[in-house]
Amino acid sequence: MRYLVRISYNGAGFNGFQYQMEGRTVQGEIEKIINRMHKTPIRIHPAGRTDSGVHAIEQYFHFDSELNIPVSKWQHALNSAMPGDIAVHEVTTISSDYHIRHHSKGKVYRYRIYQSSVRDPFEKGLRVHYTYDLDEAKMRNAMQFFVGVHDFTSFTSAKSPIENKVRQIYRFDLIRTEKGYDFLIVGSGFLYNMVRILVAYVLEVGQGRWDGARTPEVIAAKDRTMVPKTAPAEGLYLERVFLTEKEREAALEKLKRNR
Amino acid sequence: MRYLVRISYNGAGFNGFQYQMEGRTVQGEIEKIINRMHKTPIRIHPAGRTDSGVHAIEQYFHFDSELNIPVSKWQHALNSAMPGDIAVHEVTTISSDYHIRHHSKGKVYRYRIYQSSVRDPFEKGLRVHYTYDLDEAKMRNAMQFFVGVHDFTSFTSAKSPIENKVRQIYRFDLIRTEKGYDFLIVGSGFLYNMVRILVAYVLEVGQGRWDGARTPEVIAAKDRTMVPKTAPAEGLYLERVFLTEKEREAALEKLKRNR
Repeated sequence: MRYLVRISYNGAGFNGFQYQMEGRTVQGEIEKIINRMHKTPIRIHPAGRTDSGVHAIEQYFHFDSELNIPVSKWQHALNSAMPGDIAVHEVTTISSDYHIRHHSKGKVYRYRIYQSSVRDPFEKGLRVHYTYDLDEAKMRNAMQFFVGVHDFTSFTSAKSPIENKVRQIYRFDLIRTEKGYDFLIVGSGFLYNMVRILVAYVLEVGQGRWDGARTPEVIAAKDRTMVPKTAPAEGLYLERVFLTEKEREAALEKLKRNR
Repeated sequence: MRYLVRISYNGAGFNGFQYQMEGRTVQGEIEKIINRMHKTPIRIHPAGRTDSGVHAIEQYFHFDSELNIPVSKWQHALNSAMPGDIAVHEVTTISSDYHIRHHSKGKVYRYRIYQSSVRDPFEKGLRVHYTYDLDEAKMRNAMQFFVGVHDFTSFTSAKSPIENKVRQIYRFDLIRTEKGYDFLIVGSGFLYNMVRILVAYVLEVGQGRWDGARTPEVIAAKDRTMVPKTAPAEGLYLERVFLTEKEREAALEKLKRNR
């Protein structure tokens, strides 16, 4: 039986999702529990691997199990063994040819910053402290250039092995929060470090260090050296994974109405 | 010159305030920075020592320095070296016979819990997960018995070496929050573990495991074994330290108006 599991985790205490020989990882913690239940190694497969320090409000993984546990009991079984920084929200059965990474239909990421003269100890690991003033209009203008289908070579790690760097961005919104800003981005998929590089770029524009009107030029250049910065991992949240196109369209419709 | 420093810290990453040979402590981190500046050991003196995992929204310490740094420069000098889970909010000069622990006029503590079927990874270390239903009226009724001047022997660690266990509680409020409750307590001073034992007791009452009407009896018993539980450290915040009686009266007046 193939099970699909919806989880969230606080990335602050993990060296990322992917299993490592040393260092605490989300996959390592979950597989330790699942392996103990099965008394044999079982691999879990996430919708996407998050980097060290990156959080997930919604992440999925699937795994195969022959254990005779009713699907309604799995959530509690897993949660009772889970550490406090990982939570299991739902466990369902799926077709054995479903593969979340290949079959999911897009993702939402959120990037959170706050502004204050003094750092807030309670934001450590959760939001990024930003001391510069930001021009909202300049940021919004630059952000709109990314919506649509583009080659994002200028906005991914230069060492990315993936050939096709074309991705579709459905929305890229700036949300004013109590003490700062959230960046919300909805896309078909994301290249390595892409959200963190996009946010670093938009912050450069907001701070007045780069002319946002030149964004089409930066995209067209397909040159990572034009955008040298990557925003810190701790501000990044995987917020949603769309299992179907219908889910994605409903979420986009809702975002449009709430504007 | 004696300096008074107002700080906040996230207790999740510390083995408490007080310096230890091993283990990261708030005092250890701050003295490391101050010692480096002075090139000689300097001791800092807090308003009160917080336990491992306990947070401070407002804490004070003072220290003596002969360094020729204008008072207006101290905040930035300290913050630039401080780790991300301690923040310095203000530095002022005080009389060299002022001792914060002896001269302060009371404190406010807050204790935070949240209720949900599944633990929230982003509350880890910040609020305590509570799964039982709580009867608000029962809790409020029990809490009122603590307001006033009482011997709190039943509500402190049995191994406390302090002789006089009489303290004055000015207020003990229950505040409904989005997902749970905050307990806010204002007192002249607090015994070791006193807030955490009071909260554990009130939660037993709220859960229906103890009759809150019997609270005067529990206080009068002066017997720690009547209240066996201590609520976890991670929910506790030192929220305010009153430097003067005037500050304390103003805060109490404000709480009364906001009721």
